[in-house]
Amino acid sequence: MTSRKVIELFYDVVSPYSWLGFEVMCRYRNVWNIDLKLCPAFLGGVMQESGNKPPGLVPNKFMFMSKDLNRLSKYFNVPVQAPSDPFEAMFKKGSLAAMRFVTAVQVREKGGDAKVEQVSRELWKRIWSEDKDITLPASLSEAALKAGLSENEIKEALELSTSKEIKEKLKSATQKALDYGAFGFPMLVCHIDGNAEMFFGSDRFELMAHCIGEKWLGPQPEKGAAKL
Amino acid sequence: MTSRKVIELFYDVVSPYSWLGFEVMCRYRNVWNIDLKLCPAFLGGVMQESGNKPPGLVPNKFMFMSKDLNRLSKYFNVPVQAPSDPFEAMFKKGSLAAMRFVTAVQVREKGGDAKVEQVSRELWKRIWSEDKDITLPASLSEAALKAGLSENEIKEALELSTSKEIKEKLKSATQKALDYGAFGFPMLVCHIDGNAEMFFGSDRFELMAHCIGEKWLGPQPEKGAAKL
Repeated sequence: MTSRKVIELFYDVVSPYSWLGFEVMCRYRNVWNIDLKLCPAFLGGVMQESGNKPPGLVPNKFMFMSKDLNRLSKYFNVPVQAPSDPFEAMFKKGSLAAMRFVTAVQVREKGGDAKVEQVSRELWKRIWSEDKDITLPASLSEAALKAGLSENEIKEALELSTSKEIKEKLKSATQKALDYGAFGFPMLVCHIDGNAEMFFGSDRFELMAHCIGEKWLGPQPEKGAAKL
Repeated sequence: MTSRKVIELFYDVVSPYSWLGFEVMCRYRNVWNIDLKLCPAFLGGVMQESGNKPPGLVPNKFMFMSKDLNRLSKYFNVPVQAPSDPFEAMFKKGSLAAMRFVTAVQVREKGGDAKVEQVSRELWKRIWSEDKDITLPASLSEAALKAGLSENEIKEALELSTSKEIKEKLKSATQKALDYGAFGFPMLVCHIDGNAEMFFGSDRFELMAHCIGEKWLGPQPEKGAAKL
């Protein structure tokens, strides 16, 4: 019997490539012998502290990323659709309130991560599929309601999300990501034989599978290798 | 009978990720129904004109790339080994003379691209495997000799490489890359049904294969899908 390998997934719902990585890992947690740990963190803090600049500021890179996301969205079967004003959505409005809310949902959840998974997904759908706000309490409530949380749970998570405890928890998750060497999200940290192997982006799954001794079956593993 | 799809590969021997992409494409030209066109160009010009910054300037990104290249080098079976001073090699010394030489070899070669392929590979080996110079005429000669060119061919290519014709040819290849939307190398341009589909980097092969209707068998296709 081999023990399950722990993989930490650091993500922020402001990042579309994180959404791709998140869905792939949520699919593979049922395929690979892994224990997936969802680690919501704050991308703004990672960019600031690492000294990295958003790639979309270079015009040719921005154009490539739009095209790339369109193609990957179809290939990964994740409905990514850029908001009408990506700079407004990503940099002016940002994701601080949203990621604090996700953190609060995670702290409150016992015995699993079904709720934090579903709330994260609904927030991504809002910003990266439906061009909707993710900054206002009403927006967070709406996402959480769709994710299956009760009105009472939502009220409590919203209150908790502005507490010092949650602000500190999100900060420390972000710092943990930086300590692993983050300069953007998604970031995957695989714990293999006592070593932490870091993979950045949603384009290293094949390599990562090779490193953890698992099989890469494409971004839609339920379709199997035949699809490739 | 389907006609062969044309794929242009823009590369510079100063770029280690270009080497990975180059070797993969040279392997797949015998596996996929494609017509691979080698397009040596000048990465320095692409970075300058697109306004992109070298990724290695962000410390966490630099550390990730070193690790990433080590892992990919093994997985792709390409002997990438960083030079002792990557900044000196890449930015201070650079690749202008080398890429002019490659361009001259290409212009002189008739009926194929075996020589330009082999000379490019030997230059990559020098800078990205053996920590050797690629700026001096003696260095270029040595690489070309290993690539199987005769002393006479080398002498003529060296002379040609400093001509106005070759300088202009490299400039126009670089401009062509920019016109396709380049902001770095490797860049692959697939011509599909009259459209040019651009892929940046050496981590989009699986997606590219899907787009051109071919099968991705991993970076070492001769080993087949079983390896994955």
